[in-house]
Amino acid sequence: MKNEECFSAPVESFMDDFDFGENLARFDKAAVFEEIDAMKDGPPFRKKKEQYLQPHENVLDDDEVEKEEKSQPSTTKDGYYYLTENEQKVPAVSPGDRAAIFKSSEMAGFSRERRIATVGLCCAQLVLGLIGGSQRFKVGNKHQKPTVVLLCGSHTQGAQGVSCGRHISQHHANVIVCVPGENKLNSEVSRELQLFRETDGEVILSPQNLPASPVDLIISALHRPAANLENDFSKSCIRWATQNSKACILSLDPSKHQDFNSKWSIFVGLPLHGSASLGNIYLCDPGIPNKFYKSLGQEYVVPYGSKFVIPLEDT
Amino acid sequence: MKNEECFSAPVESFMDDFDFGENLARFDKAAVFEEIDAMKDGPPFRKKKEQYLQPHENVLDDDEVEKEEKSQPSTTKDGYYYLTENEQKVPAVSPGDRAAIFKSSEMAGFSRERRIATVGLCCAQLVLGLIGGSQRFKVGNKHQKPTVVLLCGSHTQGAQGVSCGRHISQHHANVIVCVPGENKLNSEVSRELQLFRETDGEVILSPQNLPASPVDLIISALHRPAANLENDFSKSCIRWATQNSKACILSLDPSKHQDFNSKWSIFVGLPLHGSASLGNIYLCDPGIPNKFYKSLGQEYVVPYGSKFVIPLEDT
Repeated sequence: MKNEECFSAPVESFMDDFDFGENLARFDKAAVFEEIDAMKDGPPFRKKKEQYLQPHENVLDDDEVEKEEKSQPSTTKDGYYYLTENEQKVPAVSPGDRAAIFKSSEMAGFSRERRIATVGLCCAQLVLGLIGGSQRFKVGNKHQKPTVVLLCGSHTQGAQGVSCGRHISQHHANVIVCVPGENKLNSEVSRELQLFRETDGEVILSPQNLPASPVDLIISALHRPAANLENDFSKSCIRWATQNSKACILSLDPSKHQDFNSKWSIFVGLPLHGSASLGNIYLCDPGIPNKFYKSLGQEYVVPYGSKFVIPLEDT
Repeated sequence: MKNEECFSAPVESFMDDFDFGENLARFDKAAVFEEIDAMKDGPPFRKKKEQYLQPHENVLDDDEVEKEEKSQPSTTKDGYYYLTENEQKVPAVSPGDRAAIFKSSEMAGFSRERRIATVGLCCAQLVLGLIGGSQRFKVGNKHQKPTVVLLCGSHTQGAQGVSCGRHISQHHANVIVCVPGENKLNSEVSRELQLFRETDGEVILSPQNLPASPVDLIISALHRPAANLENDFSKSCIRWATQNSKACILSLDPSKHQDFNSKWSIFVGLPLHGSASLGNIYLCDPGIPNKFYKSLGQEYVVPYGSKFVIPLEDT
């Protein structure tokens, strides 16, 4: 009887409603391929079952990892913190704790698109200061126009990078954005790239085309906070960046597992417990109200004062 | 035969698809009432036909007026300009010319939501500097916490005001946003207000509830650039603001017809030809690439240098 209820309707009655084109479009091929790229020995469920992973390892580069980390003791509880210029404590958190804060703000209407836009703008303000400030960006100062290269992966961090690049380009810098090919981009990066193409900036779709001549600044938006994504694209980018030795590197929203040296790193909302390779640390305000930080406890006060980007000191 | 084709289907076949509730929801009652409020002698099409309007008058407060102004000689062509600190010329434009620039950027993907968010953030940065900067906003400096009142109309300018208020609130100021009642808000203001409600800020739905005690700063986002909308809400707000005499007023994206004195005004993207009542002029970067300003001619260079908000001097 049950089978009859389920299967008695003619197949055609369902076929009318099924839009193959639309369903195919929903399949994010690039993301799946990137996920496969990120695995060394097979799919994640097999690994987890056979426990190939050590507790300190992060191979997957998605929310799943962040959710897993969430269940581990957070760095906040370890008591590690940074200090602001006014000696206020800012706790270092785990990527999972930070992702949970962002997630709850997204549920309340603070879309990821807004956060990407805010981070892009704040990061651009930091960059314009770092590479010369008002003297160098004096309008009409064409012969000193700095060149900035942004290396952007196909994820939220990459989208933040492209957004940052767009603002820098509008402020009279030569900007080159390098992404892993149009068909490998997630929707966030694609959207930001569409806007970036309206500027005078240049888009490079393969690390092989990165400039041979020296550049003024390299911004790495290659890694997600939870993991260092070791795919061919980011490996090639990092090889180019570290060989282009005169240019300083700014890491945007970096992974704590970063294996190359940057001069500066800018964290979004809350710092992770960083390593020496991250260089000088900055923190930028992603525009999320204070209440979303309540999981950090009553003693936490949002530390920006009158600024939107502040330097942090290691303790 | 044609009539038969059109009308032969039974009425019921259309009725099924017609959702009265949804169609009613689409009807923006508040906007229609505001439009009627703005008219003195009747609907716009009658006026236009009978030519009640003089060329210098702006009664309607919508894009239609801006489109009409577009066809008039723009202020740019009059050659009026402001100067930056570096003595770069920034042309004053008509509201219509500026609206056309914004419109073309919207067509290319720079949504109004993004522009509102960018202006809100930049304006908040200016405000935090104007009312005390890093000394006053020192974290933990609770007894000097400033109070800022934002008066926001139901239009893009109002939405920019609410967005600005949200950022200020997150940076430890007491923020009060006054809007003309929930059911009178357009979708842009509603959306920003929803986000504002996640902060510790206060929302007031009638000018009668504005605080009697002195405040530190009043931000007016009451008027659209094309016209001074003389409705009861803005009249009451202005009356309160001018009587609350100790507090300075910052006009956000103001009308050039503004009839009260502000200490500062901040224009978005391009300044209008202002009057003395606008006070000191600032210009903020709405995040639109340089190419969209090409209608201003080859000689125009985006003037921000390394900043996103710059002061302008009257000539």
